[in-house]
Amino acid sequence: MSMNLSPTLETHKHVLIRALAVKDQALLDERLPEIRSADLAEILDQLIEDDDLATALALFACLPIERKASVFGHIPSDGQERLSASIGDGDLVRILDRMGSDERADVFKLFDDDRKEALLRRMAHREREALKRLASYEEGTAGALMTSDYVAIPSGLTVAQAIMRVRQTAPDAETVYQIYVIDNQGCLIGTMSLRQLMVARPQALIDDLMIHDVIKIGVEAEQEEVARVVARYDLLALPVIDAEQRLIGIVTHDDAMDVVETEATEDIHKGMSIGQLKDGVSRVPLWSLYRKRVTWLVLLVFGNLFSGAGIAYFEDTIAAQVSLVFFLPLLIGSGGNAGAQAATLMVRGMATGDVGVKDWGKLLGRELLVAGSLGLTMALAVAPIGVMRGGDAIAIVVAISMVSIVLFGSLLGMCLPFVLNRLGWDPATASAPLVTTLIDASGVIIYFSIATAVLAGI
Amino acid sequence: MSMNLSPTLETHKHVLIRALAVKDQALLDERLPEIRSADLAEILDQLIEDDDLATALALFACLPIERKASVFGHIPSDGQERLSASIGDGDLVRILDRMGSDERADVFKLFDDDRKEALLRRMAHREREALKRLASYEEGTAGALMTSDYVAIPSGLTVAQAIMRVRQTAPDAETVYQIYVIDNQGCLIGTMSLRQLMVARPQALIDDLMIHDVIKIGVEAEQEEVARVVARYDLLALPVIDAEQRLIGIVTHDDAMDVVETEATEDIHKGMSIGQLKDGVSRVPLWSLYRKRVTWLVLLVFGNLFSGAGIAYFEDTIAAQVSLVFFLPLLIGSGGNAGAQAATLMVRGMATGDVGVKDWGKLLGRELLVAGSLGLTMALAVAPIGVMRGGDAIAIVVAISMVSIVLFGSLLGMCLPFVLNRLGWDPATASAPLVTTLIDASGVIIYFSIATAVLAGI
Repeated sequence: MSMNLSPTLETHKHVLIRALAVKDQALLDERLPEIRSADLAEILDQLIEDDDLATALALFACLPIERKASVFGHIPSDGQERLSASIGDGDLVRILDRMGSDERADVFKLFDDDRKEALLRRMAHREREALKRLASYEEGTAGALMTSDYVAIPSGLTVAQAIMRVRQTAPDAETVYQIYVIDNQGCLIGTMSLRQLMVARPQALIDDLMIHDVIKIGVEAEQEEVARVVARYDLLALPVIDAEQRLIGIVTHDDAMDVVETEATEDIHKGMSIGQLKDGVSRVPLWSLYRKRVTWLVLLVFGNLFSGAGIAYFEDTIAAQVSLVFFLPLLIGSGGNAGAQAATLMVRGMATGDVGVKDWGKLLGRELLVAGSLGLTMALAVAPIGVMRGGDAIAIVVAISMVSIVLFGSLLGMCLPFVLNRLGWDPATASAPLVTTLIDASGVIIYFSIATAVLAGI
Repeated sequence: MSMNLSPTLETHKHVLIRALAVKDQALLDERLPEIRSADLAEILDQLIEDDDLATALALFACLPIERKASVFGHIPSDGQERLSASIGDGDLVRILDRMGSDERADVFKLFDDDRKEALLRRMAHREREALKRLASYEEGTAGALMTSDYVAIPSGLTVAQAIMRVRQTAPDAETVYQIYVIDNQGCLIGTMSLRQLMVARPQALIDDLMIHDVIKIGVEAEQEEVARVVARYDLLALPVIDAEQRLIGIVTHDDAMDVVETEATEDIHKGMSIGQLKDGVSRVPLWSLYRKRVTWLVLLVFGNLFSGAGIAYFEDTIAAQVSLVFFLPLLIGSGGNAGAQAATLMVRGMATGDVGVKDWGKLLGRELLVAGSLGLTMALAVAPIGVMRGGDAIAIVVAISMVSIVLFGSLLGMCLPFVLNRLGWDPATASAPLVTTLIDASGVIIYFSIATAVLAGI
């Protein structure tokens, strides 16, 4: 959600606020239904962000109950938390009641135990149990993502009977376009699309038409895996089963799409050694932003000390040829850049499934060729400057160092994600800051070792 | 697509290859239907990758024509190109004929003009025109993403008539779950979901029930925008209109989801100054990988020369206090890391819509506070080492420099994406390598200026 509304939404917002101020109920009744729920949620969220909770509540109060549920579901959790604090238990239960079961569980998790108890007491027994169960799954798993509002029919129905069931369930189900068939134990035994149902003979048996080999996922599966399966098989919804193969929910395509975006943001942040943020950078508390950035920054300070130690070790070589220092940032910087590129290509390839652990050998060969060419190109670019600033000997040292450091850096960057993966770590820990710090230290040693060797030989 | 098959697919592949070798048609007929099209496509693609085109063709030949179309659509474009080179025009047209119109257009773009002509000659007039039109849209736009297989009905039908239309169109349409209503000119005037249709009275008029304010997008819109609209409003499909408001296609949820993943990969690569790759890192040609990486690496070599020049300029200060060099990598490295973090947070925030240009002021304030705290923390971490290695004066210089460089680097990293955006550039050009190179050069100057000032004062 943006802190900036689009011009259209900005106009809507001003009209609504004015209408509220002059108590023009007719204008409110005309305008509010025209604004889509996702957009109205954004307007409310911005009002809450700007600490104008009173206006947000007044606008929210104008909505019919179904609309309240739909709009509330689109508000980010931060805003939901602040808004619901000013809504009575009775009203809140009526709103929750009309939300999808997955959204309801997400909202429910925001409350403290007292409020949870108070809300649960007002719910019907069946809903209470369903909510408790959905809210119990760990964040980031299929269980936390799924909804329990799906169409499941028993084995043995005809097409006509199944269509009747779909009609009855239509108002509540998250999607009616995929129907799941379960046996007496609640186990998933088949699936059929509404499209297939509609073109089938009404007297035909579902069991004769359905697909038996259903694509499904376990409730403990990670959300990346859920999104990958949905994308790979172009699914509208992915059924979720428990350890006993019982159907307990579905993850719909829109929720899977949100996961792809969230995971990408997480990976991009990890690539710069930034921890997982709970919200957008413009909304997350400052203290949390500090904490998510500081850990690796401080760790890398100590990593960088090795580069300093390397420089100190070669003090004699440097004193003999001060012009060597001129090329230091350039050489270690170039190695760091090439290495960070190589690491990023591998980490993203592993995240999207393009690169597997077994590809390591082939990719190493490819990286050798590419990095070698990159090093040579950069050496050619820098050699003339070497001649100008320090003469032929320096130019030779700088050119050889460039090839060596770029090659070493690229191979290090390429291999690190595989090594981390082997050790059971997240390959994305091979972030640009970590890779460049490692290459800085190694680059200092490589450069001055070559310099010492070449210059001693002259 | 992975170069590594999962163990299940590996087993399938071996069984299939063995069955082919011993000409066991019965086994092939039993196994092939059990493998999902996406999975079979991956097996074929791996065979093609491994230059075993003959086996891939033999397996492909065993499939019924409908299955051929579905499997072929799942093969990456590289593999499609190589496979189709060995398929006759007649067979290829029959396969293309059964593919979705969007996939067909993508395949068609792979061929040279001669083959395009030959294929077009074998198609029916109407299909030929549709294909030419779809293949003409620029890559990365709504037009290139859309399919022309949707359900459009004229204004004035009853619910029962509309359901009949859906039944008739079901075998060909990409999705039948959203129905679009058009007027005499072909303009989009309303939409209705199949779910709503199914629960409505059969005699009711569509025009009375449909939503008039349809969420739609122009054919020229960028694919990021398409994906954002689909995600924001949780759509199954997004209708695409031309300049005259005529409905010309729809983009389905699964294609929008693929865009989110592709765009994320592109952004992650851009964050390391890697150009846009046409395929996964394990598949893209080496020459292309070299080209996409070398441009910025060489440009940054020259950027890094400024750091060298800075060092040369302060040669006297360095000569007087050689221990200063010990802290150089650490200071500019830390500034670079903090700056790259800040830039990445902004670039990703802008890409997901969380951060807008107008937020600049507020975010600058936040970054000042966070970066200040980060700088102080890192200064505290490094000060004791300053005392140990060079005494109190050096410790003071290093601590002040750390705060200054981290603060300056973070603000530079944060502001650069906004400045680039203002200049009409892609904010993602503010990559980690560019930001760290800029901060390296500035860091050298900040550090040695502070050192010169403080040490001269002693």
